Amino acid sequence: MSESVPQFDTRAFRSALGTFTTGVTIITTRAEDGTPVGLTANSFNSVSLDPPMVLWSLAKSSRSLPAFTEASHWTVHILAAEQEELSNRFASRGEDKFAGLELEDGLGGAPLLSGCTARFQCKASFQYEGGDHIIFVGEVQEFDRSDRAPLVFQAGKYSLAAAKACALSLSQSGRGHGPDNSFGENFLGYLAGRAHYQIYNNVRQQLLKYQLTDAEFFALSVLSVRDGRALEEVNDLISYTGQEITRELLQGLRERGLLQQDEQQLLHLTPLGRRAVLTAIAAAKAIESDLLAKLEPAEVVLLKGLLKKLILQTDPGLPDLWEDPAWGEDEPAAADES
Amino acid sequence: MSESVPQFDTRAFRSALGTFTTGVTIITTRAEDGTPVGLTANSFNSVSLDPPMVLWSLAKSSRSLPAFTEASHWTVHILAAEQEELSNRFASRGEDKFAGLELEDGLGGAPLLSGCTARFQCKASFQYEGGDHIIFVGEVQEFDRSDRAPLVFQAGKYSLAAAKACALSLSQSGRGHGPDNSFGENFLGYLAGRAHYQIYNNVRQQLLKYQLTDAEFFALSVLSVRDGRALEEVNDLISYTGQEITRELLQGLRERGLLQQDEQQLLHLTPLGRRAVLTAIAAAKAIESDLLAKLEPAEVVLLKGLLKKLILQTDPGLPDLWEDPAWGEDEPAAADES
Repeated sequence: MSESVPQFDTRAFRSALGTFTTGVTIITTRAEDGTPVGLTANSFNSVSLDPPMVLWSLAKSSRSLPAFTEASHWTVHILAAEQEELSNRFASRGEDKFAGLELEDGLGGAPLLSGCTARFQCKASFQYEGGDHIIFVGEVQEFDRSDRAPLVFQAGKYSLAAAKACALSLSQSGRGHGPDNSFGENFLGYLAGRAHYQIYNNVRQQLLKYQLTDAEFFALSVLSVRDGRALEEVNDLISYTGQEITRELLQGLRERGLLQQDEQQLLHLTPLGRRAVLTAIAAAKAIESDLLAKLEPAEVVLLKGLLKKLILQTDPGLPDLWEDPAWGEDEPAAADES
Repeated sequence: MSESVPQFDTRAFRSALGTFTTGVTIITTRAEDGTPVGLTANSFNSVSLDPPMVLWSLAKSSRSLPAFTEASHWTVHILAAEQEELSNRFASRGEDKFAGLELEDGLGGAPLLSGCTARFQCKASFQYEGGDHIIFVGEVQEFDRSDRAPLVFQAGKYSLAAAKACALSLSQSGRGHGPDNSFGENFLGYLAGRAHYQIYNNVRQQLLKYQLTDAEFFALSVLSVRDGRALEEVNDLISYTGQEITRELLQGLRERGLLQQDEQQLLHLTPLGRRAVLTAIAAAKAIESDLLAKLEPAEVVLLKGLLKKLILQTDPGLPDLWEDPAWGEDEPAAADES
């Protein structure tokens, strides 16, 4: 049949197919001898609503093929964004893929994995010829789902998706591009600036209580991460903001009892200075939680990742504020795994 | 067969299936009477590499079914991010879906649409029973692809995907969370601020030439969009930055020949003032192009959209800078359609 097909570059074909975005699934079953079997697949899709049916396909060369051709049931797990490692584990051959996993027994004994976005427990219905693959069609008998953002696969990379229309226009009419000598509300620089200022305004309200300027606050927060730094070091660390603590400003901070200098001229926060920073940081944390609650989990990961990309692209090579390795351990295993 | 299936909530089932992310395709063929036929489907997937095969499924109730069951060939178009409207058009019934489209004739006469991410021209191979759908399997005989970012469908919404690991950590070690009284490099507020400052620093270099402060530049750029505004209006427009032009600063700008005031006290840029703004804006545009070139198209749309979402969430209800409707027309049909 394939004689009519022109000579294909298989790699180009795979790469073209890879432009079709998919989720990532793990499909499990129980072999006749009782062994749990599972593999990663993105060839899953829905087929029918009534009866409820789904399909996926498996290479005829797969070592798991006999288990699935014999199986009365199999389960499709739609993986969550955090399950990238699980996906890799079930995509590779060898060893016991199920070792150490929290498992339940599903219909027909098919192992049920936890932490997924959705699971479909299926009775095997049909097996169809599909070139070098077999197409498996199953009838969904039970399903469940969670609110976890799904893992996405696109162009060979683990990805995340966010709604396209998350907020395409600030002004309803979509207007916003001034004449050529100006710049519009669609400029990344403008958007980053406006987002920053609007978030930061909540912090600034707190600074007013202590009559702190932005530069003074930046300096105090650098010292709140670790104090005992020289003025030059503080200025290095805040230089990305374009601000600087001059000798005069330093003198003012000392006179207002916010900072003190030791005999080596290193700077330390006073209790008052620390209280001022804490107040401002508490406001920053409040607005942070507020914002995070208003974004989808995938949006948070994407936004942070993309801002980091911007930062790395524009980084003038500054010293790292969080240079003390002792704090590495405190980093929580956040949703974005960073 | 379905008697063993517990009573399903079809809506819940659809919604659980919808957590599986997909691309969006339009599949076309030529009916025996010569009519072009096409429909939107996300049930597409790859099946086999050798021979190269793909599949998709179509409801038995579809009016297009006879054309596809009879067809010798059909073509799958993987839609690009900009083709949302085309997707909607081919998802709805009625009228001539192909009207006004630029079409070519593909294998077996199947119409070829343009502007897609990839296209697969297939010879019909198999039709399989799949509940209320028929599964169509075809052998890919020709394919092509472009660099256009693909349209994504997730949880019932048009979406875009970006690689998960776009830049998960600024510092290699992923460290960055200070003690509880501080905040880490994973804070949205910190990331937005650092991104903004680093982008803005390029503009600031230009401001130094004219000895302009941030506040003065913000005021001048508001006037470069449209001048003849009162001081209060200018201050309203820049208030999101936390900055203000006092009477004293205004006096300084006038004395330096950057601004003048008319008899109604409205502010106008002088030629020197306009030149200063233009210089800074040129720097802003240069860094903007630079950054855009370093991001994937889908990343740009997602980043801008998410920043806009942040801005809307933190908007204290400011007047709109670009309020003059005459400029609405100038907005280019940008990649993000905003």
